[in-house]
Formats: sequence, structure tokens, C-alpha cells
Amino acid sequence: MHKALNIFDSLPKDLKSEVFEDIVRSSPVRIERIVSKGHASPDSGWYDQDENEWVMVVEGKASLIFEDGSKCDLSAGDYINIPAHVKHKVAWTDPDEITVWLAVFYK
Amino acid sequence: MHKALNIFDSLPKDLKSEVFEDIVRSSPVRIERIVSKGHASPDSGWYDQDENEWVMVVEGKASLIFEDGSKCDLSAGDYINIPAHVKHKVAWTDPDEITVWLAVFYK
Repeated sequence: MHKALNIFDSLPKDLKSEVFEDIVRSSPVRIERIVSKGHASPDSGWYDQDENEWVMVVEGKASLIFEDGSKCDLSAGDYINIPAHVKHKVAWTDPDEITVWLAVFYK
Repeated sequence: MHKALNIFDSLPKDLKSEVFEDIVRSSPVRIERIVSKGHASPDSGWYDQDENEWVMVVEGKASLIFEDGSKCDLSAGDYINIPAHVKHKVAWTDPDEITVWLAVFYK
């Protein structure tokens, strides 16, 4: 039997914090659903990751900011590839509706 | 500068055949957009892949069939992980609207 799941299934009710869930975890790749609602990264510090990250906003709106000062607004279907060690953070996510991200981390 | 692209950008007009486009190509992972409209796999033969495939329907409707006879209907947001060498094929895609797939192939 082969059964599909849905990216919008079982959305967390408690979104006091962002919710990160593994979809696929293997050694070369990790696929993750992230659900945000009004969350942003702390003012100080950056994500500085050992893995490359390909990330798409499936639903909602968000804004990334990079160490070079550039900003990247994302809405449904928008995706970006963030190479390892390119420092970035989440500047903003929509406070009024849920933002569902799909992230693929890979070496 | 960091610029997002959109999964729905530049959808191919000529869909006489399905259109496969790389989004990310690295040695451990390949992320691909597939655009279908009424396409299905040939009646005989199966996809028998060396890589695992995680696939999600972003927009549209499709149906997969597996060698064990099970069928899997997919609509927007539905995803399934197909391990390497699990034989499958596309039984159906919606002939009236475009189906956009996001596929992540990994070892």
C-alpha cells in the first residue's frame, strides 16, 4: 500500500513557537515542513548552516534577510536556494495567517 | 543579491509532452519541477529508479499506480515518498488543467 500525506495536514494549533517537522530524513537529504505565524528570527545572530537549503513558501508570506543586506520577500510558490554558510534570517512572517514552508537541506 | 523564483513562473506553453526542469542539481540531491497536462506513463513498463523520490503535487491532480496494484490519488499538497526500485507509473493527470509536481530525488 502506498498512501499520500498532505503538506497541509495536521497543522499545529499551538504556534507560540514555530513548528519544525521532518518529512524525509536520510543521510544526504532532509525534507522539512515549517509552520510559522508572525515569527521572526532573533534580532541578533544569523542562521549559519553547514548544509545547503532549498526552501519554498507553499502558503502564506514571509521575508528573508541576508548578511549582505538584501531582502527577499516570499509568497506562495516562491523558492530560493541558500548555499551553506550564506548567513540569513527570517525577518518577518505574516502574523494573520499561517505560513507553510517546505525546506530541503542537503550537503 | 538573493532573489526568489516562483514554482509557477514560465510554465511551458507546449505541453505535447511532459516538461521536466531541474531546480537544484547537486551530487546527493536533484530537485525537479514537472509540468503535466493529461499525460500518463506508457501502458507497459514501470519507472524503476536508482534514487529515492519524494514527490508533491503543488497544483492540479494526478494518480500514481504501483506494481503491487495500489493506486494513489494526489491533489494539491499531497506528497509521497517512493523508495528506490519501488516500481510505479503515472496512471493519470488532469487533462483540463496543468499539474505542477515538485520532485526531490536523493540517494
